[in-house]
Amino acid sequence: MSFELIQQNRCQGGYWKQFKHDSETCGCEMVFSVYVPEIATEVVRNLPGLFWLSGLTCSDRNFVDKAHVEARANDLGMIIVVPDTSPRGVNISGEDDSYDFGSAAGFYLDATESPWSDHYRMYSYITSELYELVLSRFPIDHQRLGIFGHSMGGHGALTIALKNPDKFRSVSAFAPICAPSQCPWGQKALMGYLGDNPPLWRQYDTCALIADGSRVESILIDQGLEDQFLEDQLMPEALEAVCAEKGIALTLNRREGYDHSYFFISSFIDEHLRYHYQQLNGS
Amino acid sequence: MSFELIQQNRCQGGYWKQFKHDSETCGCEMVFSVYVPEIATEVVRNLPGLFWLSGLTCSDRNFVDKAHVEARANDLGMIIVVPDTSPRGVNISGEDDSYDFGSAAGFYLDATESPWSDHYRMYSYITSELYELVLSRFPIDHQRLGIFGHSMGGHGALTIALKNPDKFRSVSAFAPICAPSQCPWGQKALMGYLGDNPPLWRQYDTCALIADGSRVESILIDQGLEDQFLEDQLMPEALEAVCAEKGIALTLNRREGYDHSYFFISSFIDEHLRYHYQQLNGS
Repeated sequence: MSFELIQQNRCQGGYWKQFKHDSETCGCEMVFSVYVPEIATEVVRNLPGLFWLSGLTCSDRNFVDKAHVEARANDLGMIIVVPDTSPRGVNISGEDDSYDFGSAAGFYLDATESPWSDHYRMYSYITSELYELVLSRFPIDHQRLGIFGHSMGGHGALTIALKNPDKFRSVSAFAPICAPSQCPWGQKALMGYLGDNPPLWRQYDTCALIADGSRVESILIDQGLEDQFLEDQLMPEALEAVCAEKGIALTLNRREGYDHSYFFISSFIDEHLRYHYQQLNGS
Repeated sequence: MSFELIQQNRCQGGYWKQFKHDSETCGCEMVFSVYVPEIATEVVRNLPGLFWLSGLTCSDRNFVDKAHVEARANDLGMIIVVPDTSPRGVNISGEDDSYDFGSAAGFYLDATESPWSDHYRMYSYITSELYELVLSRFPIDHQRLGIFGHSMGGHGALTIALKNPDKFRSVSAFAPICAPSQCPWGQKALMGYLGDNPPLWRQYDTCALIADGSRVESILIDQGLEDQFLEDQLMPEALEAVCAEKGIALTLNRREGYDHSYFFISSFIDEHLRYHYQQLNGS
């Protein structure tokens, strides 16, 4: 299987490494980045890890360039895995036509509608193929792996954690799409990738999954109050309601003055790393 | 005079604000960004400030997006001013033809050669027009203002500090071009903007300025040892030699594994802020 280092940059002691590999799941070459803390280069051992899932329009590089995760990740000795947000260049008509569907908008689901179903299988890519690949290549303790993300990637992190509590033991999100079945971004994506199939939609909707009985112990969410997508797309109050109903410990920090950008993410990324570290170490 | 806020983003408590204004010096509209710490929004008072000068190919946004200066700047209550790297769109034939001359490559000098001399006056823009503009608009203590930069911007920071010790009281640089008269980037720029005028070249060459008697008390420099431009373009050893000869306290940190990128800058930006803060507060 192809697996190639594209570039690496030292940052805060550790290294960002970007790789490409042929993905069987997506039927195309996929790219991802990994932050490897300094301690992993000295003594290979089992370190806690985190998957970061990015939002619409992003590649793996937005987080790498802008989130400023390195200092804390290096301090805590955590490995951070950053996948791309969709298959790329798979020659589907219209794949590059809109910012919220197709390229860079995979929504972390397995499409069932043709022609997307041949390639747009980001759910299986993240939870199986990439999961196994990074566990085999990096010194990650599979019992101390968490997941987090932003916006569309917050939706991805929450739904994946709810459905895979054995693989991802902690979850948090920045400004996640909490109820995609009920917002324009989500409805466009779910209809396009899954067709008019309401039971299947519920499998990729955080609020519906929780309402239907999926559980995680706790969730940390940060939400900026100047976020231009807050009202129409994100619906944190729906998540608050269903978590209260189902007894899930949700910490929802509403942040005055902050918007939907990486300026917001980088402001609170340290707190999310500490949260995951504590959750994964049982303290 | 026009002066307009283009965008603002809250980050680490304070705000990044991007402005545009009509520059008399450059004869075009210019853009710059300013980080204003939270304390400045509560009580307007005299805060220490720093000008950051960016390198080749950059606008004001590279530093804003990638340097991660905000946490420390907000902690220390420092205002950070980030200019663009050249005039833009001034309709000079060839201005966009190369990455190291013309647009995004102003070299922080006042051009004397036609047609560049009508617009490419970044030295006067930084030290007079922008200097006065930001001191009039932001609560910066003019006696506690420093300057720092990267690569071409490190050259800019060092030469400007050496020539304006009354305006800029502290100086540091990441991977600066230390002796532009002696390297390909510098020779192309100095010849293109200033013509074949060796005495004038010395006015924009850090090593030559120091050799000729310009002084600052101390200089902090960080230099990555995996920097792809280290050998041909940067020449820190020439700066080391002339500082030793002239009795300038140079701290030159050689950083193993680090390259020329913002991954390197963000790794040591905290130390530079602390350095300036201490220099400007006389401690």
